[in-house]
Amino acid sequence: MDYKLYYWDLPFRGVFIEMLLAEAGASYSRHHASDIYPQRSLKITNPGIAPPYLYECRSKTYFAQMPAILMHLAREYDLLPKRAETHTLALKTILDCNDVLMEITNFNGQVMWEKTAWDEFRYGRLSDWMQTFENTGLAHGFKSDGGYLLGSTLSVADIATAALFGPMVYSFPALAPDLEDNAPHIARLVQRVEARAAIRGLLDKRRAEWERGYCGGQIEASLRAMIEE
Amino acid sequence: MDYKLYYWDLPFRGVFIEMLLAEAGASYSRHHASDIYPQRSLKITNPGIAPPYLYECRSKTYFAQMPAILMHLAREYDLLPKRAETHTLALKTILDCNDVLMEITNFNGQVMWEKTAWDEFRYGRLSDWMQTFENTGLAHGFKSDGGYLLGSTLSVADIATAALFGPMVYSFPALAPDLEDNAPHIARLVQRVEARAAIRGLLDKRRAEWERGYCGGQIEASLRAMIEE
Repeated sequence: MDYKLYYWDLPFRGVFIEMLLAEAGASYSRHHASDIYPQRSLKITNPGIAPPYLYECRSKTYFAQMPAILMHLAREYDLLPKRAETHTLALKTILDCNDVLMEITNFNGQVMWEKTAWDEFRYGRLSDWMQTFENTGLAHGFKSDGGYLLGSTLSVADIATAALFGPMVYSFPALAPDLEDNAPHIARLVQRVEARAAIRGLLDKRRAEWERGYCGGQIEASLRAMIEE
Repeated sequence: MDYKLYYWDLPFRGVFIEMLLAEAGASYSRHHASDIYPQRSLKITNPGIAPPYLYECRSKTYFAQMPAILMHLAREYDLLPKRAETHTLALKTILDCNDVLMEITNFNGQVMWEKTAWDEFRYGRLSDWMQTFENTGLAHGFKSDGGYLLGSTLSVADIATAALFGPMVYSFPALAPDLEDNAPHIARLVQRVEARAAIRGLLDKRRAEWERGYCGGQIEASLRAMIEE
């Protein structure tokens, strides 16, 4: 076993790590976040305040913070762009993904969504985010017949982008046209990444368990009420 | 000129970048965030949804996302730990800093602080964050007579940690005992980093302008009302 992943039984932040591990062909076991969080959070080697946590068996250490975990694995499995600019943009893309997760859940469910705020977000900031990804790809890797976000080969930025928008439109199919309208090349990229054999296998298996589940809790219910209204 | 930094006239997320640039001896000019945000956010080379933005003159490109900017500059100026574990922990530390900024402003001022919620945060989550930094340093670089967070030499993780807790206790001196109680080695580290000549010079100059300003807006007023009560 190469890794242990501690997370909730939901896609949200965990699926980013699972998709990368699947693509890399790494072996890992899944554990419930409550095995660490919150009681052991400060006591583990390399303490981290919240899930996901990745335990690396070889080094016997834990890593917290989804973007740091993805960058760590991307370096390990050669999924990082080589040039300084695109290397930095790979990290920047993962951070953008992490921010979108935060914003679509109204900052981890700080306040439940209400119609006016949701519509403002959906047609303002969420559209802007989608266009940010689209414009990044157009300036770097997208070609008329394919390509990847930051160049001609798959990188961690593509896995993160697909792990953001794939589960979002799978859990909330009504958002698929938003992605298509704001970021048509990103919509295609998501399909290409989700079609890769190891990732396809992972998603099929997980979605049989998760169904349309997204982030869980009251905030998912609030989000669902807005979108399905 | 090596860089242009676009940010508000406040420490908050911008001071992380300024402290690194000062330590590195890089030349930069400061510009108001509104030169880019929000009108040009999606149009610049490498679009980014929010300040800070760093323009790299050599490559004629913009970078958004404070943690990505810091990692980019750290690579450029040899401020990254060399081993895979500590390299990842450097990024993880910056992400922790970014989360603390988000949480102490109640998610960018999403809701104003009220006494019960603030006390819960201050004596719960904020204390846990401080201990997370302390335990990381104790497991890696701290020695009885000094040391740095992740090893025996200064890295971007030290600059980020100092940029988080230094301005926090400078703007809100009542929080200094919280840091001292939860993270005494971090309190010393902050002093050592702030005492480095270039960083000392920068902070003296900026604090003459900023005074005790922190993140600005109503959320700073709300925070100040809680802490100074």
